[in-house]
Amino acid sequence: MAQDTIVNGVNVDQFFNSIDLFKEKPELALFKFRAANKWLGGTKGQATVKDFYGPGQEDTSREASSFDLDEPIVLLGKGEGTNPVEYLLVALSGCITTALVVKAAAQKIPLRGVESRFEGDIDLRGFLGMSPEVPVGYKEIRVYFKIDADISDEQKEELLRLAEKYSPVSNTIKSQTPVSVHLEK
Amino acid sequence: MAQDTIVNGVNVDQFFNSIDLFKEKPELALFKFRAANKWLGGTKGQATVKDFYGPGQEDTSREASSFDLDEPIVLLGKGEGTNPVEYLLVALSGCITTALVVKAAAQKIPLRGVESRFEGDIDLRGFLGMSPEVPVGYKEIRVYFKIDADISDEQKEELLRLAEKYSPVSNTIKSQTPVSVHLEK
Repeated sequence: MAQDTIVNGVNVDQFFNSIDLFKEKPELALFKFRAANKWLGGTKGQATVKDFYGPGQEDTSREASSFDLDEPIVLLGKGEGTNPVEYLLVALSGCITTALVVKAAAQKIPLRGVESRFEGDIDLRGFLGMSPEVPVGYKEIRVYFKIDADISDEQKEELLRLAEKYSPVSNTIKSQTPVSVHLEK
Repeated sequence: MAQDTIVNGVNVDQFFNSIDLFKEKPELALFKFRAANKWLGGTKGQATVKDFYGPGQEDTSREASSFDLDEPIVLLGKGEGTNPVEYLLVALSGCITTALVVKAAAQKIPLRGVESRFEGDIDLRGFLGMSPEVPVGYKEIRVYFKIDADISDEQKEELLRLAEKYSPVSNTIKSQTPVSVHLEK
């Protein structure tokens, strides 16, 4: 049995095999991801992530992960956790990074290091309902990437454009993604 | 000195004082939140959250928080962390919950408990660049809330609509929020 091709720690054969598989059976490309949340008083809460659906079946193999949520003291909290809009940047940071690394691997471009920083602007008058003109969410998010690899700046830019184009979190944020909120009785 | 009014663990006086303050000095409502990310090989990475800006100054008072990111084994990873699209649901879960709790507090509605679950659909053919018709991000996110309080179902629904309307993460996802990605040389 031939050895799989690994670039940047990514199994490139598994990547291309997935494309072949999803061409044949597109229903196997449909995944469902989940989280649960429990309010702990004030602005504190705990979120849990465990199971997901895909490919074609429930996956319960991972351990549960828990995340503490809180607002800083200046925003009605106790500062004993990371706040929701910061978790959104955590999500975005992981997503563009992974998209970059996987797309580089698919092109057999080895990377030595990838570091990035994320900053988003929020005008709290939106949340407080003080003015309908003020956006409630992030007004803008800025992202800065450092890529350590033996490729030209133009190739780094190209990789970054690919990563941005194919990052699920970035696309969820940039598109008008529907969110439906239901009361369970 | 009179005691502050606390409802649901939220300082309601601080909430209304913020509104008064931001009416007078809107620039104090402008916050910047941040995250940093370091790639750890394959689909693994670590994100860090610490400082933020607001109101009117840098806030470096919190301890740093770190978050492990990884993809499950069926998605090129080792399953040793939560993946980016799951972190997005963590963010959304905390945000709608906090908006709900704070808006209830502002109306002096006491809550006993709030629990919620979140599920989003992703078609991986988008990420893999297999078809321009398939959305790269979440196609849809569904949210289910259980609210334990001595209020009618109609009041619970109203609170939930308010929470949804004023949740920064929900609005970031539902709007076309600009994300600009830059290469640092």
